[in-house]
Amino acid sequence: MSNLPTYEDVVAAAARLAGHAHRTPVLTSSTIDAELGASVYFKCENFQRMGAFKFRGAFNALSCFDAGQRRAGVVAFSSGNHAQAIALSARLLGMPATIVMPKDAPAAKVAATRGYGGEVVLYDRYSEDREAIGRRLAEERGMTLIPPYDHPHVIAGQGTAAKELFDEVGPLDALFVCLGGGGLLAGSALAARALSPQAKVYGVEPEAGNDGQQSLRSGAIVHIETPQTIADGAQTQHLGKLTFEIIKRDVDDILTASDAELVEAMRFFATRMKTVVEPTGCLGFAAARRQGRTLAGRRVGVIVSGGNVDLERFCSLTSGMA
Amino acid sequence: MSNLPTYEDVVAAAARLAGHAHRTPVLTSSTIDAELGASVYFKCENFQRMGAFKFRGAFNALSCFDAGQRRAGVVAFSSGNHAQAIALSARLLGMPATIVMPKDAPAAKVAATRGYGGEVVLYDRYSEDREAIGRRLAEERGMTLIPPYDHPHVIAGQGTAAKELFDEVGPLDALFVCLGGGGLLAGSALAARALSPQAKVYGVEPEAGNDGQQSLRSGAIVHIETPQTIADGAQTQHLGKLTFEIIKRDVDDILTASDAELVEAMRFFATRMKTVVEPTGCLGFAAARRQGRTLAGRRVGVIVSGGNVDLERFCSLTSGMA
Repeated sequence: MSNLPTYEDVVAAAARLAGHAHRTPVLTSSTIDAELGASVYFKCENFQRMGAFKFRGAFNALSCFDAGQRRAGVVAFSSGNHAQAIALSARLLGMPATIVMPKDAPAAKVAATRGYGGEVVLYDRYSEDREAIGRRLAEERGMTLIPPYDHPHVIAGQGTAAKELFDEVGPLDALFVCLGGGGLLAGSALAARALSPQAKVYGVEPEAGNDGQQSLRSGAIVHIETPQTIADGAQTQHLGKLTFEIIKRDVDDILTASDAELVEAMRFFATRMKTVVEPTGCLGFAAARRQGRTLAGRRVGVIVSGGNVDLERFCSLTSGMA
Repeated sequence: MSNLPTYEDVVAAAARLAGHAHRTPVLTSSTIDAELGASVYFKCENFQRMGAFKFRGAFNALSCFDAGQRRAGVVAFSSGNHAQAIALSARLLGMPATIVMPKDAPAAKVAATRGYGGEVVLYDRYSEDREAIGRRLAEERGMTLIPPYDHPHVIAGQGTAAKELFDEVGPLDALFVCLGGGGLLAGSALAARALSPQAKVYGVEPEAGNDGQQSLRSGAIVHIETPQTIADGAQTQHLGKLTFEIIKRDVDDILTASDAELVEAMRFFATRMKTVVEPTGCLGFAAARRQGRTLAGRRVGVIVSGGNVDLERFCSLTSGMA
């Protein structure tokens, strides 16, 4: 496929993001190192602007707009982190943004998107098609539609997190990355193949929705019903065309983690590492932990993708206070 | 006072800690910068080993032991972070450690201290005197007693956190530091006077226990009853002799924060900055926030002292799920 992004696109994205995205910290835990007999490096994108890696891809994509595109602005449909990432990036770059969100999206998320200056267009998710609404808005207003993962500039932007990790800690033996539509995993794989070619790259998705695993093993994109899982950022129904091409080529395997393992990982992050991670952000760590002592002696990277979870939900999941 | 530590002692402590203590990240928040009109730098000691700055002072003090002291080991009395800091430092340095803890200390804290290899001696806090027990053990076993804050090597070690902050972000206009016995505040003030002489240095203690404020204003150490506050790390009854000398000389003022402000700060740290901070660790931020727009245009440092709070307690305090 001719428009597949490459590692050079990741490098170009890193240059565009410099001074705009946070260079997030890499944390370690002697407790987990002792448990696995390994050296584990957590790249903490929950400390990224707006609380998730999604800022990287959105800002990179909008930075590539030409003058006409900037004047007309961007449209996106999302009820999650992509909405806020697009709204914040558009504000920083001084362009209009319209975000299509379901009427029953959490009020906090709608407010956060508006707080970043985005115009929110609400739709009824039971009777209306958000993609059609997005395309119509794009056409009527001359806006550019930026999808949440299946876009070369988005994938390249997401790859900058893994690039920073390798730049900071050097080559690794294994890298665990959460997987929804595959933007973060595909971008991370591009960085890994260039900077740490021997590393095994693993995608991790919820046990309840292993469409990525099925796709990789069957060689074709598998579509599933929206999976029931606490990992709301990974409730995708299928991989993207671009992301799947890269994943097929550059990813070693796709693993899964159960909701119970995600809760246990959230508890570990909060109590031992003092950091708040959303369920989806725990996928990589949960899968690494399930590997146990098979990782002994290895240098292991884990991408912690985000921390956007309501405190009430966080507490009801982790402390049994429902 | 001849044994007051100096900035040179902080520099020497930093050299001893290199490769043993984490160089903790400095986090920022565009939300809080916009709220205050300031640039705020959070030095996050909740990511320090064992979850609090206390590791710095303990490890520095134990590193200064001579061969005989190392063989005999260390004794400490504490029910909090100092206990774990001494136990972990002793294990890393290969010496015995005995920690005197109250019989009714939380089981998790006793277990954590034992987990770090410390021998725990329990006492009845209603009928026995922990200092007397500590002194007796020190005498019987030839062990060296390391107090939690009023010791020159402990103060110098705690000062390395602020030193790292100034080394990373340069001079500041104001620095907010939480205050219990004063070890962290005194050490931070030594670093500030050397590296950012124009900075206003503020200690912050719980509104319910403002003995430090009273002491600074009256010029003599004021003793109070154990204050009722959620900031359990600042439930001290009085400053130390050494810490007070440094605080009198180098600290501009002592401020207070209410328990309600600490809870609000914990919520902000968790939801916006994705980090778990114990109530005591929120004192500096809560006081800075109370200053509001008077900090506009300023460069402000905040030491976040630790993150050791049970998840259940954290959730009952912050999410109203009691």
